[in-house]
Amino acid sequence: TMLGRVLCTVLFVGVLPSPSEASQGHVSVVLLGATGDLAKKYLWQGLFQLYMDQVSSGHSFTFHGAALAALEPGQRLMFEVLKKLSCPPDEAPNRCAVLKDQFLKLSQYHQLKTAENYTALNREIETLLRQEGLQEAGRIFYFSVPPFAYTEIARHINSSCRPPRGAWLRVVLEKPFGHDLASAQQLAAELAGFFREDEMFRVDHYLGKQAVAHILPFRDQNRQFLDPIWNRHHVERVEVVLKETVDAKGRTSFYEQYGVIRDVLQNHLTEALMFLLMELPANVSSAQEVVQHKLQAFQSLWALERSSAVLGQYQAYDSQVREELQEARGYVSTTPTFAGVLIRSDSLRWEGVPFLLTSGKALDERVGYARVLFKNRAYCTQSGALRDAGHSQCKAKQIIFYFGHGALNSPAVLVSRNLFKPVMPKDSWKEAEPRPDLHIFGQPLSDFHVYSPVKERDAYSVLISNIYHGRKDSFITTETLLASWGFWTPLLDSTSRQPPRLYPGGVENQQLLDFEMVSGGVAFTVAEPAELLSPSTQMPSDFRAIQSKFRQSPLVSAWAEDLISQLASDMEAAAVRSVARSGQFHLALSGGSSPVVLFQRLARHHYSFPWQHTHVWLVDERCVPLTDSESNFLSVHRHLLQSVRVPYFNIHPMPVHLHRRLCVEEDRGTELYAKDIAALVANASFDLVLLGVGTDGHTASLFPRSENGLHGAATVVLTESPVKPHQRMSLSLPLINRARQVFVLVLGKGKHGITALLSRVGHEPSKWPISGVSPSSGQLVWYVDYEALLG
Amino acid sequence: TMLGRVLCTVLFVGVLPSPSEASQGHVSVVLLGATGDLAKKYLWQGLFQLYMDQVSSGHSFTFHGAALAALEPGQRLMFEVLKKLSCPPDEAPNRCAVLKDQFLKLSQYHQLKTAENYTALNREIETLLRQEGLQEAGRIFYFSVPPFAYTEIARHINSSCRPPRGAWLRVVLEKPFGHDLASAQQLAAELAGFFREDEMFRVDHYLGKQAVAHILPFRDQNRQFLDPIWNRHHVERVEVVLKETVDAKGRTSFYEQYGVIRDVLQNHLTEALMFLLMELPANVSSAQEVVQHKLQAFQSLWALERSSAVLGQYQAYDSQVREELQEARGYVSTTPTFAGVLIRSDSLRWEGVPFLLTSGKALDERVGYARVLFKNRAYCTQSGALRDAGHSQCKAKQIIFYFGHGALNSPAVLVSRNLFKPVMPKDSWKEAEPRPDLHIFGQPLSDFHVYSPVKERDAYSVLISNIYHGRKDSFITTETLLASWGFWTPLLDSTSRQPPRLYPGGVENQQLLDFEMVSGGVAFTVAEPAELLSPSTQMPSDFRAIQSKFRQSPLVSAWAEDLISQLASDMEAAAVRSVARSGQFHLALSGGSSPVVLFQRLARHHYSFPWQHTHVWLVDERCVPLTDSESNFLSVHRHLLQSVRVPYFNIHPMPVHLHRRLCVEEDRGTELYAKDIAALVANASFDLVLLGVGTDGHTASLFPRSENGLHGAATVVLTESPVKPHQRMSLSLPLINRARQVFVLVLGKGKHGITALLSRVGHEPSKWPISGVSPSSGQLVWYVDYEALLG
Repeated sequence: TMLGRVLCTVLFVGVLPSPSEASQGHVSVVLLGATGDLAKKYLWQGLFQLYMDQVSSGHSFTFHGAALAALEPGQRLMFEVLKKLSCPPDEAPNRCAVLKDQFLKLSQYHQLKTAENYTALNREIETLLRQEGLQEAGRIFYFSVPPFAYTEIARHINSSCRPPRGAWLRVVLEKPFGHDLASAQQLAAELAGFFREDEMFRVDHYLGKQAVAHILPFRDQNRQFLDPIWNRHHVERVEVVLKETVDAKGRTSFYEQYGVIRDVLQNHLTEALMFLLMELPANVSSAQEVVQHKLQAFQSLWALERSSAVLGQYQAYDSQVREELQEARGYVSTTPTFAGVLIRSDSLRWEGVPFLLTSGKALDERVGYARVLFKNRAYCTQSGALRDAGHSQCKAKQIIFYFGHGALNSPAVLVSRNLFKPVMPKDSWKEAEPRPDLHIFGQPLSDFHVYSPVKERDAYSVLISNIYHGRKDSFITTETLLASWGFWTPLLDSTSRQPPRLYPGGVENQQLLDFEMVSGGVAFTVAEPAELLSPSTQMPSDFRAIQSKFRQSPLVSAWAEDLISQLASDMEAAAVRSVARSGQFHLALSGGSSPVVLFQRLARHHYSFPWQHTHVWLVDERCVPLTDSESNFLSVHRHLLQSVRVPYFNIHPMPVHLHRRLCVEEDRGTELYAKDIAALVANASFDLVLLGVGTDGHTASLFPRSENGLHGAATVVLTESPVKPHQRMSLSLPLINRARQVFVLVLGKGKHGITALLSRVGHEPSKWPISGVSPSSGQLVWYVDYEALLG
Repeated sequence: TMLGRVLCTVLFVGVLPSPSEASQGHVSVVLLGATGDLAKKYLWQGLFQLYMDQVSSGHSFTFHGAALAALEPGQRLMFEVLKKLSCPPDEAPNRCAVLKDQFLKLSQYHQLKTAENYTALNREIETLLRQEGLQEAGRIFYFSVPPFAYTEIARHINSSCRPPRGAWLRVVLEKPFGHDLASAQQLAAELAGFFREDEMFRVDHYLGKQAVAHILPFRDQNRQFLDPIWNRHHVERVEVVLKETVDAKGRTSFYEQYGVIRDVLQNHLTEALMFLLMELPANVSSAQEVVQHKLQAFQSLWALERSSAVLGQYQAYDSQVREELQEARGYVSTTPTFAGVLIRSDSLRWEGVPFLLTSGKALDERVGYARVLFKNRAYCTQSGALRDAGHSQCKAKQIIFYFGHGALNSPAVLVSRNLFKPVMPKDSWKEAEPRPDLHIFGQPLSDFHVYSPVKERDAYSVLISNIYHGRKDSFITTETLLASWGFWTPLLDSTSRQPPRLYPGGVENQQLLDFEMVSGGVAFTVAEPAELLSPSTQMPSDFRAIQSKFRQSPLVSAWAEDLISQLASDMEAAAVRSVARSGQFHLALSGGSSPVVLFQRLARHHYSFPWQHTHVWLVDERCVPLTDSESNFLSVHRHLLQSVRVPYFNIHPMPVHLHRRLCVEEDRGTELYAKDIAALVANASFDLVLLGVGTDGHTASLFPRSENGLHGAATVVLTESPVKPHQRMSLSLPLINRARQVFVLVLGKGKHGITALLSRVGHEPSKWPISGVSPSSGQLVWYVDYEALLG
């Protein structure tokens, strides 16, 4: 066989290690998609580099290219690629030529299509090893194939190609790893049926880029300088950027399905971001610790909303799509090719610091970087011209991890000289040559300590080496992958209908893609120029809140996010009016899940809400301690009160927990609350009561088929819920109906049934308590989202 | 008489108004200190300008220069000044020459020394008016004299020189208006014995500077643009700066008593600051509204501490003082000639925004400005070179009120073009000529809309005109004066012993006076260079906390401010340890006035205090509602809790107010609190109890001559205070003694007696309850300031 011949040759040229070294065993590398683009451009070269680096490691190697093509043409295609493998500049040309020759001889093409093909491959490997008397160390299967093929291949490898006990299996997966959270979960579940977590190496080649890979080590090695400043008190903003000049031409069949967020932000930029954002593990080389800290960092992020991003599309994209995908003339793509996203963390360290992720195609330059800009906390008494001679504290202070390209045209780490001189590992990073004329990020290069790699290495070479060494820390785990999709999917969903801003491409973009932070989100800084308007922006906007009537009262309806934003604004307006009128605002809030987003919006977008003069009451409460996770008050506290400044005295949780017991009648909690209301709220008329509706028509904790709290003089009552925890305390219907304003919030498909029913029935509070809500002299407004309204 | 001759001449040249116009009446202006520096440089010129402007107003004028010198030499000196009066460029030379001639004839010198002199002056004015048949409109007395002379002159004017009913009296006072709060109060009280508030015009000539005077009108006329951005969300910092190149040579007899803070910051810079900081009155030309808003703005300011300022002194100052004041060789002045001060407001609008006030002599340039720098909230996608062609949102955004001198060499208002084009009153401000080569605040002048006055006017001319028109809004009222001294005095006190940093002067200062914001205060950015060290910096530092023993327990002692700062740090350290050990920190706090500064320090300087895991308990409480101003809890809330994030559930006010009544035994508040402690605090052992000491030796609310709470099992008790409000709730001594740590804070001279006594007595809790504090297994630390310790 050819394989036999190859090995003979190898043995003949004496490259295989001597018996004692050979005890390390044999490694088989199988590259699936051996003739594809990625393989051609990076992977074979990376494997050749691996071979050059490891030829004397004690391992022996064989390389198996595989694809769907038949043996003949496949072989030909693959060897054309292999012949073009280049020798790195730091390798002696003679040695490289010999090694390349060997590499070619150790490489072989296989058609892998049917189950039999996989069995045959496995047999060949086993045969070879037996023939040569080699121990097996492990097998690497590199999936350089489209994702739809993953499951099938994984199944075959698992059933036919696993190495014997004692040898490892490493499967290497290339993105995309799904299209959103659901598809990523599905793919992850399928792969988990075939491989253990420790067998899977998901590649994000950014983790192999030298400047990205050095972020954590840099933070670790410079703890003494960074500890005091790596936080919200000192950092003004963080930017993670990948700008490209190329467009998507020739790749639109892929791109049209993905767009810039899935292609770049969800993976590459997020990974770099996490290295900056995460708490520094005690041991930065522990893959496990890094993963744990990364997951915690994901948890600290604010949920993305539609207003968190600005999206663009270069003008030619649409016609490229129509041409390449043979779409009809009327086809309009809303796939973004540019995105700017504002990310915030509510960790103590980063609260309030904007993290801006930006990427786009057809921009003015090709460059990638992660930049930490520090606040200017200095006043420089000497005037500008005289001051700038030295390294004044008034000059910008920044730390930049420069991924490559751009003005520097190489990976680099830059630290402003007025910050500190960083500790850098001498074996891998060296001080860069001065380049007197170069300005970067608004400053001469001489303002920075600049370091570049001692040896510039391609990301794939780095990663292939890490796979070989089993270093999992440069790969994406299932957990972090799903955390990332969990983070990005809501933005993808909420922007999927949004027409991106069109931009001409290249330097012509001018300031068209500049964006700025406004009221919690981002927006383009210049208005849409008329001449660039495309038909897509003339689609009817379905985002505007519609106003109408529901049960004879005003109805506000919109998609959930817009509805919440409208409701929050209306609440602020009510609060401002009320404080102007009476100096106070008495607000009664409901628990449950629907208002959580409302609370967050109030906390994060409404800085001028008069919290100092607001009293917060509860509409109802479960009979659990206030610190119990079931407590309505806990939810109000967590999502609203702990972020705003309501005076302690103005916060009125329901007294469900008295004398260390829950809702015992003789403790008279209801009376206590009623007295507080009577004492503080003029006429016991709340300024605003926020209600929800249950699928059974309950509201507050007033439940169907019970007269409790529907009539009579009691303003606060104990009730029984059909679901656990059964015991509840609630404002009564008569008290609710004394309010000046009542807003009812109804969200989600699950509420469509009750919404439809309520639109038809009259005043029947004992069947549907919500139908009894009818303020005697106040106003009732319904806030119902499209899903609840339209199903 | 000379006066008669003067008037005849005036009548002769026909300048006096016709009878109908003459009904406006006569104005007598008396300039006290008529031959002094200020009069020579500004005041006579200002009076001449007034005359030129108002000669046709219907008023007739006489001008009375006065001084201590006898008639002959005084007259000669004064007329030498008057002869040099200049004609403004916008005045026709002929008219000016005629008017100057008239002005000289209307002016007369008086010796004002004795009571008789004042009576004589009054008589002369009356005689003249009678002779000429003139109605009296009013009299202006301009005090251009040293402040020690104020009271005497004021007494004479009040008793001898008041105009008859129907005519007004305006006395104009020049700073200094006191030396600190106490002296300013005294001076104000004295003046109030002679003049009504509406009769006094206190001059701060900055209020006459055109750019300063235009701050409020600018804010008013540009409300539409400023409303959304004039707040902490958009403003990065505000700088108010007056840099001088001159030094204090020749003026050290004054300067040595005052220094830069009293000379410039307390008055000029504070006035400009207030215009920027205050809420905008509905009517900005209502002097009353402006004063009210200014006073509110003062109330919103954080108290200044020693760390709020950096101080410097130019190197030659010391020898100038020794020479001019004939001080001995060993004399060392600590008078600052440079100051940088960080001011913060806790108004909702400005919370977190640094206001930096800077002034100094012997600096590199002469310039004054107030600069509002806005945050960069934009990300500019286009790279720098291409972006800066237009007015990118990434360029700095600033609004500058340029007082004068410096590169522009004229007053100006500058607004970055990427902000907005301001509304400016066309009759008084015009767009300035472009000056292509000029850079200012790091940007070419062309980046700004630049406005300069249509007619540049000297501040004193403006103010003299305002006095004549009775426009009080450009003068300092007694209230705002005292508010300003109240604000600055604590800083003057706390820095009075502090040796200023020496600086060489001029451009040689380089970065020596640059300062930056660090942990709530400011500090110079570069370390003190050794060669500039003066003997004064080698004085023994009395600021370091000393450690010793008091009543067999550790004692920390220092000046109050350092002591508080040490205590706050120790508390944070205790909290961090406790949270590391048990996940929680149970802290019991005392009320009273001493801990207020501690609370503020904790809230403002200790960002990493683990509040999220801290439980706050009260050591004792007065039996008043929690919202009563006497409530200990209210004080803790106001100064600490409302600024930090302690979860609602972790806040434990004492239940003194149950069932809407106070400390009624059957409501069992003590039991309730005891149960809460038992339930939440492991072993009922607080991690830290903070105590104070009363002059009678009480601590918590455990009072002498009562056994209540000193022994027994009760952990929380009701007690009786000898002072109102009598009823109290308190932790018991046995409970306090179970704590892991007890810190006792003793501050102020008033506590010296009890401190001295406690240092001698043993364990006698029924006489002095504090002497019973002796944690059974915990640690007791005394924090006693020098005043309490040493008297």
